[in-house]
Amino acid sequence: MSETRSAEFAAADPRFAQRVRASFDRQGAMRTIGASIAALEPGYCAIALVPRAELSQQHGYVHAGIVAAIIDTAGGYAGLTLFPADSSVLTVEFKLNLLAPARGEQLVAEGFVVKNGRSLTITRGEVHAVDRGRRTLVALMQQTLMTMHGRADAPDA
Amino acid sequence: MSETRSAEFAAADPRFAQRVRASFDRQGAMRTIGASIAALEPGYCAIALVPRAELSQQHGYVHAGIVAAIIDTAGGYAGLTLFPADSSVLTVEFKLNLLAPARGEQLVAEGFVVKNGRSLTITRGEVHAVDRGRRTLVALMQQTLMTMHGRADAPDA
Amino acid sequence: MSETRSAEFAAADPRFAQRVRASFDRQGAMRTIGASIAALEPGYCAIALVPRAELSQQHGYVHAGIVAAIIDTAGGYAGLTLFPADSSVLTVEFKLNLLAPARGEQLVAEGFVVKNGRSLTITRGEVHAVDRGRRTLVALMQQTLMTMHGRADAPDA
Amino acid sequence: MSETRSAEFAAADPRFAQRVRASFDRQGAMRTIGASIAALEPGYCAIALVPRAELSQQHGYVHAGIVAAIIDTAGGYAGLTLFPADSSVLTVEFKLNLLAPARGEQLVAEGFVVKNGRSLTITRGEVHAVDRGRRTLVALMQQTLMTMHGRADAPDA
Repeated sequence: MSETRSAEFAAADPRFAQRVRASFDRQGAMRTIGASIAALEPGYCAIALVPRAELSQQHGYVHAGIVAAIIDTAGGYAGLTLFPADSSVLTVEFKLNLLAPARGEQLVAEGFVVKNGRSLTITRGEVHAVDRGRRTLVALMQQTLMTMHGRADAPDA
Repeated sequence: MSETRSAEFAAADPRFAQRVRASFDRQGAMRTIGASIAALEPGYCAIALVPRAELSQQHGYVHAGIVAAIIDTAGGYAGLTLFPADSSVLTVEFKLNLLAPARGEQLVAEGFVVKNGRSLTITRGEVHAVDRGRRTLVALMQQTLMTMHGRADAPDA
Repeated sequence: MSETRSAEFAAADPRFAQRVRASFDRQGAMRTIGASIAALEPGYCAIALVPRAELSQQHGYVHAGIVAAIIDTAGGYAGLTLFPADSSVLTVEFKLNLLAPARGEQLVAEGFVVKNGRSLTITRGEVHAVDRGRRTLVALMQQTLMTMHGRADAPDA
Repeated sequence: MSETRSAEFAAADPRFAQRVRASFDRQGAMRTIGASIAALEPGYCAIALVPRAELSQQHGYVHAGIVAAIIDTAGGYAGLTLFPADSSVLTVEFKLNLLAPARGEQLVAEGFVVKNGRSLTITRGEVHAVDRGRRTLVALMQQTLMTMHGRADAPDA
């Protein structure tokens, strides 16, 4: 019984964290919903979000699409931590299972690189709701990313 | 060569459109991103959204998560048009392929019911970017919904 | 209400049908399960299979994995019809919903190219059970393919 | 950095292993491809398969559909270990990423229950190729199962 853990990854670009944070800061959508980067390591990214009425679906929980937005972002930036300095990241596709209502004090979306290939990178992701010190698994994701070589993820690079 | 078209569906509840619109109006997330219902028929729902900087990813296009939010909503409400009056809809899971940059004058997300079962309903979805009269396919979705019987999708029902 | 049809595609290689059939004939798995190519057009492939006990799951219907095998193949070869002569096809990923028991006189798996990109191609697929002239939708698929340029799909090409 | 491990699960039915093995033995498809149960615990199932030419795709590796067949089965039986004695399991849908050629001395497909709900159960799965003592991750899966209550998974139960 040997579920694969996030492997040990090494960042190709020592300035990976700075590069990911600069890219995140250019995302108007993340600012609009109020998400922030909670953690960043080679092959890993966590995005935090505080639930509020402006992000709700019809029952008052956080909308599945907003959950998708933070886990897609966490997976994408988990990948970007490993990409060369002169490249950017595109989501090819992702699949999301919703397991429990997205509510509580905070949502934490975590993306983990499973395989970092030259053109395609595979991640998986989890979103947990944190409430009174208790974590509940809210969503599970599997994602395919593409590395855009030679196209730095900066407006004026 | 016989790709299945959206079948002809009949709404179980004659007030389906009113019920879907009331549910949509309770979604804070749709209001925050500025989405609206563009069309509603039994087994079908279209959601429209105007791209703007507040919804962008790092390259200035609409964020994949926002694309996910509108197509998840379109698929979910395509399903809800067919559900009994005393029920509501939950997204079990969806899978989204992103095919082209989400930009232009307007995005239109369309959900189509493929099979309406007693507990599970399957939809597929498409997001098109509309620009100067030209439609470009931006995203393709496949989704599983659950009917919550006996739980009307209203706050005080 | 405008679900995208399989677009009109043109084959890059006029000998596409011969190339796909030669590739199919090298698939030991298709021979073992008894599948055959039922139709082939640019951007389209249909695979036929007769249900039998050797392909069953525990309730006697055709195993979901065998359904997956024929629809993955149909999608992959729908893509290969459009690829250059000196390339081959790899499945990056697919997602399959199972809608009804896979049984009857014949299963027909149909793959349709939705977008044919330079490196990635997106297809969707449907499996129908045919019984006494009646078609039942058994499975729905969405798939990502990769074109392997410069690697012809033949052992001695 | 806290990827969710397979939780600790308790089997509702003490005879779960016997029940799963009897169900597996009724699968003609598993016999045809030569798969066997390698391990079984509450919430976990491993299926082993020896690659051979009869299971190949066009390049000689094990066909993606056969990889799908063993991981769908592993996930489904991981779920069934936790289900009540008078129930059976159906695959609602699964999504599979193919990461590396499926070849070597043996393939091992492992299914892990992530959440065991009353009607729906979510699993994830991995397929590894084992060759000369080395394990390579070949495929990654995410799956939704349905519990069929009151319908024991036996022909004469």
